[in-house]
Amino acid sequence: MPTYALSTSSVATPLVGVWLIGARGSVATTAIAGCAAVAAGLHPPVGMVTETPPFADCGLPTLSSLVFGGHDTANCPLPKRAEELAAGGVLPYGLPSAVHTELAAADTEIRPGGPLPGDTRTDEQLIDTFASDLRDFIRRRGLSRLVVINVASTEPVGVGGGGGSGAASAGERAASSAEAAGDGTGSAEALGGVDGSFGGAAASVRALADSARGPAASGGGARLPASSLYAAAALRAGCPYVNFTPSTGLHHPLLTEAALASGLPYAGRDGKTGQTLLRSVLGPMFAQRALAVRAWSGTNLLGGGDGAALADPAAAAAKNAGKERVLADTLGAAPEGEVHIDDVPSLGGWKTAWDHIAFDGFLGTRMVLQTTWQGCDSSLAAPLILDLARLTSRAHERGLSGPLPELAFYFKDPDDGASAALAEQYGALLALADQLRDAR
Amino acid sequence: MPTYALSTSSVATPLVGVWLIGARGSVATTAIAGCAAVAAGLHPPVGMVTETPPFADCGLPTLSSLVFGGHDTANCPLPKRAEELAAGGVLPYGLPSAVHTELAAADTEIRPGGPLPGDTRTDEQLIDTFASDLRDFIRRRGLSRLVVINVASTEPVGVGGGGGSGAASAGERAASSAEAAGDGTGSAEALGGVDGSFGGAAASVRALADSARGPAASGGGARLPASSLYAAAALRAGCPYVNFTPSTGLHHPLLTEAALASGLPYAGRDGKTGQTLLRSVLGPMFAQRALAVRAWSGTNLLGGGDGAALADPAAAAAKNAGKERVLADTLGAAPEGEVHIDDVPSLGGWKTAWDHIAFDGFLGTRMVLQTTWQGCDSSLAAPLILDLARLTSRAHERGLSGPLPELAFYFKDPDDGASAALAEQYGALLALADQLRDAR
Amino acid sequence: MPTYALSTSSVATPLVGVWLIGARGSVATTAIAGCAAVAAGLHPPVGMVTETPPFADCGLPTLSSLVFGGHDTANCPLPKRAEELAAGGVLPYGLPSAVHTELAAADTEIRPGGPLPGDTRTDEQLIDTFASDLRDFIRRRGLSRLVVINVASTEPVGVGGGGGSGAASAGERAASSAEAAGDGTGSAEALGGVDGSFGGAAASVRALADSARGPAASGGGARLPASSLYAAAALRAGCPYVNFTPSTGLHHPLLTEAALASGLPYAGRDGKTGQTLLRSVLGPMFAQRALAVRAWSGTNLLGGGDGAALADPAAAAAKNAGKERVLADTLGAAPEGEVHIDDVPSLGGWKTAWDHIAFDGFLGTRMVLQTTWQGCDSSLAAPLILDLARLTSRAHERGLSGPLPELAFYFKDPDDGASAALAEQYGALLALADQLRDAR
Amino acid sequence: MPTYALSTSSVATPLVGVWLIGARGSVATTAIAGCAAVAAGLHPPVGMVTETPPFADCGLPTLSSLVFGGHDTANCPLPKRAEELAAGGVLPYGLPSAVHTELAAADTEIRPGGPLPGDTRTDEQLIDTFASDLRDFIRRRGLSRLVVINVASTEPVGVGGGGGSGAASAGERAASSAEAAGDGTGSAEALGGVDGSFGGAAASVRALADSARGPAASGGGARLPASSLYAAAALRAGCPYVNFTPSTGLHHPLLTEAALASGLPYAGRDGKTGQTLLRSVLGPMFAQRALAVRAWSGTNLLGGGDGAALADPAAAAAKNAGKERVLADTLGAAPEGEVHIDDVPSLGGWKTAWDHIAFDGFLGTRMVLQTTWQGCDSSLAAPLILDLARLTSRAHERGLSGPLPELAFYFKDPDDGASAALAEQYGALLALADQLRDAR
Repeated sequence: MPTYALSTSSVATPLVGVWLIGARGSVATTAIAGCAAVAAGLHPPVGMVTETPPFADCGLPTLSSLVFGGHDTANCPLPKRAEELAAGGVLPYGLPSAVHTELAAADTEIRPGGPLPGDTRTDEQLIDTFASDLRDFIRRRGLSRLVVINVASTEPVGVGGGGGSGAASAGERAASSAEAAGDGTGSAEALGGVDGSFGGAAASVRALADSARGPAASGGGARLPASSLYAAAALRAGCPYVNFTPSTGLHHPLLTEAALASGLPYAGRDGKTGQTLLRSVLGPMFAQRALAVRAWSGTNLLGGGDGAALADPAAAAAKNAGKERVLADTLGAAPEGEVHIDDVPSLGGWKTAWDHIAFDGFLGTRMVLQTTWQGCDSSLAAPLILDLARLTSRAHERGLSGPLPELAFYFKDPDDGASAALAEQYGALLALADQLRDAR
Repeated sequence: MPTYALSTSSVATPLVGVWLIGARGSVATTAIAGCAAVAAGLHPPVGMVTETPPFADCGLPTLSSLVFGGHDTANCPLPKRAEELAAGGVLPYGLPSAVHTELAAADTEIRPGGPLPGDTRTDEQLIDTFASDLRDFIRRRGLSRLVVINVASTEPVGVGGGGGSGAASAGERAASSAEAAGDGTGSAEALGGVDGSFGGAAASVRALADSARGPAASGGGARLPASSLYAAAALRAGCPYVNFTPSTGLHHPLLTEAALASGLPYAGRDGKTGQTLLRSVLGPMFAQRALAVRAWSGTNLLGGGDGAALADPAAAAAKNAGKERVLADTLGAAPEGEVHIDDVPSLGGWKTAWDHIAFDGFLGTRMVLQTTWQGCDSSLAAPLILDLARLTSRAHERGLSGPLPELAFYFKDPDDGASAALAEQYGALLALADQLRDAR
Repeated sequence: MPTYALSTSSVATPLVGVWLIGARGSVATTAIAGCAAVAAGLHPPVGMVTETPPFADCGLPTLSSLVFGGHDTANCPLPKRAEELAAGGVLPYGLPSAVHTELAAADTEIRPGGPLPGDTRTDEQLIDTFASDLRDFIRRRGLSRLVVINVASTEPVGVGGGGGSGAASAGERAASSAEAAGDGTGSAEALGGVDGSFGGAAASVRALADSARGPAASGGGARLPASSLYAAAALRAGCPYVNFTPSTGLHHPLLTEAALASGLPYAGRDGKTGQTLLRSVLGPMFAQRALAVRAWSGTNLLGGGDGAALADPAAAAAKNAGKERVLADTLGAAPEGEVHIDDVPSLGGWKTAWDHIAFDGFLGTRMVLQTTWQGCDSSLAAPLILDLARLTSRAHERGLSGPLPELAFYFKDPDDGASAALAEQYGALLALADQLRDAR
Repeated sequence: MPTYALSTSSVATPLVGVWLIGARGSVATTAIAGCAAVAAGLHPPVGMVTETPPFADCGLPTLSSLVFGGHDTANCPLPKRAEELAAGGVLPYGLPSAVHTELAAADTEIRPGGPLPGDTRTDEQLIDTFASDLRDFIRRRGLSRLVVINVASTEPVGVGGGGGSGAASAGERAASSAEAAGDGTGSAEALGGVDGSFGGAAASVRALADSARGPAASGGGARLPASSLYAAAALRAGCPYVNFTPSTGLHHPLLTEAALASGLPYAGRDGKTGQTLLRSVLGPMFAQRALAVRAWSGTNLLGGGDGAALADPAAAAAKNAGKERVLADTLGAAPEGEVHIDDVPSLGGWKTAWDHIAFDGFLGTRMVLQTTWQGCDSSLAAPLILDLARLTSRAHERGLSGPLPELAFYFKDPDDGASAALAEQYGALLALADQLRDAR
């Protein structure tokens, strides 16, 4: 990777690829620009957990060894996107020009996403095309490995769905992504035109399972959500996969077996960057102190592209379920209260989350905690993307496979078996660091 | 303890005494009334950690086996205090009459505190008197053991002090007690008139050390803060000691050796019930996520008796030190920002704490978290008093001695060696529960 | 009115009746208990605008001259309701017993509301029954006049409706009443069972217009919302009418002509006691300073009976319209942003309203104002009820008739011609005071 | 003024000068850059009251007719200051280069402020030098008139003071300027080295009074605060004067007579841009609704240069007086509660003000309103500077003289006779507009 100040030292380092689904979005742009800026010493690595001491000797790839590419249906060049973000205060003044070279380089590695409306390719063909893009990237850039990360805009509820993406689970995804997720320039808007019919489930599962080991042998015309097409492509190309959004991704019944059989590590889903992050420490606090939470109400004001998708009335019914899972898990039962997600375009790249927690103290005395979180979604998510790329790459290198519940620290809806309490999740993450370190 | 509904079942239970310094204050009154109410099944044990499953088989004394007494310089009878608290919404409507019997019983066990202005007794004499009160209570009520807990109003900075209570540590006490501490009807107001001179430190230490084993052999005229006189009396009477306030208590250089030599368990100090409780979970969250906290500012509005004491300009210099210790400990360095403690009498028994946390995300993007905590001090503190009484009594029974850092979960300024992060403190508390349980 | 301390002085005062629709609800109970308490000097008249100096010589009826009665479909006696409110902290500890006599007296003057499900009476019959109740009250108690005030629970959207209560206006009512309105024990729950058919509109209008002057001459079977039945009864009995709720009341097309022809003063609607009150001063502030409000978002958490009604999904579509009218009026255009009304039963009689206002300063710099209003609905509304009773009674005495836009100060949705800015509304109220005073 | 797009249309317009004390500070830089940007149509005139319809035909000078100059002790060129402000998000990205010409032009008109430490000139000499600078600017640029506006950093309490600037009034200034005032690059830091002695008050008053009409006849060595030296220079040069800061300015006993005799209009002081602005609408709301405000507590977090000055412990005693005047005026009496002003450098050009208002409703029920105002000081103040320049210039043209209480709308501490309620202040401002309009 031709970073300006690092060309000599990075010569011998094995290059690691980071393939971003939604590569022209705010989160992706911030991650790519920020990686270059931090690697060049222009900024300290604030927000990157993998740059803290416990991860120092874990064998993680260096920031300067990361090479970026991705899929997107949008066309705006990354340097221009970065300028827009700087104008909105999301990126520092002057940064886009300082890392223009790296942004332009990544821009040349972005391939068309899909399917766009009118696209007549079958799911199988799409998966194959995406997987070819991944393999081509690996080959041309001489990558030692490639991690695929979904940061695309949240998929509309009920899109695709195959045999198992029911309304309830889809709703949970949409609701919970008020917090982090990807952003509006990704491929979600392209999902409307999908048509056709899904072939036999058994054949598809086999095809997908096969695809994780090599080129697909079967050609069933699948009807998967776009996020699952990309996930299947990652399996097919032998790439670890991370889902930072609430979209389906690998959580599709047709992919479950293939994922487990792939021998690849994967993690998800739905990055935890604001309201749910807070809840994951406040919930345990109330529980440990035996205080009785009566009602936990929340309102999210989102300015970014996800605002519109998540304010969709169709997502309303499932909102509470998604956002309150961490509460039910940490408090023992879901309290009263609703969660609202409002689209407020004038907030730009910023979001505000207000939580009102009515709780009882001793003898039923009523008390209230309120929190207001004002954050920039891309700035919160981007360093976690870099963390996840490094950790998952290293896990792959170390031979770990299957779901990585040790990464629950990063997600609102982590893999089964993970605690919902942040402190315990952090402990699990440190244990993973030990595991990665021991291998050297 | 002859509680109305429990007389038959509690006959055979060994009685455990709880001796409250500041026994007529809001916290003490709420603890005594609440213990009776919960024991009688009138209210669930909200806020009592020792009533949660992990503590079920630890051998803790039952609530109905607790017998209350204490010292205070005030005279208002407990049933009347309870009526006042109910009128202010601190106790539930109707509770004072429901537990009148228990309140009246405890009231008869309250002995005069001191020293009041004009009191010419030496410290030694005062310690002796207080210790006699404790022994008399044990004997008359047939107690298996007695725990002494300080919930008196915070001592003015620099009071007493002997050889070592310097301005810094005194200031810390005052500052940090914005949160929990005792309340205004305790003995703090009586500390002004102390006079006399303290004898040689060595002799006193010996005297105090001796006193923990039996009647004092030395008669040096000491000059200790009142809170330390009571703490010394506890040692002398062989009682475990808990300091729920920021006052000096056992943290006096003249008592250090005696405390260690006493063979008794003790714990402190300064109960953590609001702003610092929140900080002990939010600080670790920021640290674990590698977010850079730039400024943590806080304002406390206190309506209770402690408001006036803590708003004392003399405490201003040390305010930040006290309140920010948990931040420095959990964040790695103290951020910018001040802490204000305002006396707002019209808030009555309620307090409000506003925290404003300015932090940087990736690439220096500025973000803000604000929290507002509206709580009733007595309702937050009282169940913790019952917890501490039960845990310390059981620790004594089990033969534990010296400081109990495992109780850091309850304190703003815990004993050395304890983490400042609530999750870790909770882990340590659970480990103590295991230790207490194993012994059975 | 036989108030304990005032019997002698009030002998010669003409008695004025206050007839409350929803007379057993929280607002009514608080108004009746509070009137007695203030008249007896037990509490200062906090919250009563008519007790401030500008209204001193306006000829308003004294508090001790007010006599209460009303309609309700509920049966819980007022003294018992008052005990419940005191237990919840809405009424002061001890007040219910202090004003038991007055509560019991008012309780005997409460007549059955309706129609309850299964009631086969025609609208005409119901109006007649209600009007008879009013006349009977006037006669038996020797009242100089009687003001009818609607404080019943908000009617479900679309109930009744006749020829003109379209969805839009009904929605506005429900939405805006998040703030004050009546409460859940009123008659709203009784509206479901209405059946029958409405006769020709022209005939009904004539009938209702007639009814304002005397016994109805026509017998058309009307199909009006309950709130309009009560309003029509007020007209028929010659009583001034005030609608403190967002329900239809006199704002029904079939009543418009009758109201204007009645020669009676009337006012409404939807009491302004929290979020909208704030907006009526903050909106003008932004406008006067030429600051550009981009988005005004709000969330209301309601614990009382109205919470459930207003959280009804059917009301969702109209929520913004109702709550944002004051914004559109004062800002010149409606900003972005939604309003949520959540039912949070555990808040009891309390409500919390959070507003987040994103505005631009010079050159587009983005800024934010947030407000959190924590209030007790009944305590906010009750003194305004007494104000409105006194002002409307005096206006009637002075011969004023038709809508009273000078009372816009009290309402979210005032009569046409009134400003939405509180300061201007206050000016209009003071002008009304002058008008009432001059007449003496 | 050679603005790029406006050269032709502005040829015939009489030019009006705006002389800023503290001309290199954030407020001044924003005002100058913003004036050019709005005049060129690059931004709408958000925040400028004089660009709203009521002021359309008042004969105010156009923005393109304003010519900027000023005094400052700092040297950083305006274009560079503007770049800094853009980097901090105070000015829009790209604006500094768009208005570089105008910034550079104003920069050439900035003259050295003073006195700096070591300066041996007498006050009389300083006033003379400053007045010469003003006259020179008028002459060279062919100005029809020149308005002097103080936006320098707040003066330390007790500086200068002459015979009458007592601690109390000085304290009020410092305290109340938490809100708007000038900023840290002005001349306040230069005030320490002043020495010498002030001559007889009578002679000085005469000298200063004389100076308003022509060159000074007396040479008394005065000892005035720097802000008063500049104010005296304005009088001497025949320029209207506006004090946007809490510094003394014309409010010095030695200047009172001269000001009144000058025939010039003047206004002040202490711009109202945040917490006090809010209080000026919320205070009247509570008063009009007869709600009993018990405690009004506030905390200000200031990032700009004024933060340090205002956090000065010496200002603590007077803080409440200054900030709470608007409360005492609008509520009838000052409630409980303190105001804190914290210096939080990491907030940059931003400030946050939290207010907690505890109030009683009917029958003493306790309620709370909280507000959080997050604003950018320079963006709030700059448009008001342009407003004040235009209004005062036009008032001068119209022959108005003496204090202008009609401008109280802009100030925290307005001239006597002005209401503290914003709505009434706005009414007075509109009346002034009428007065200015009638003259045409």
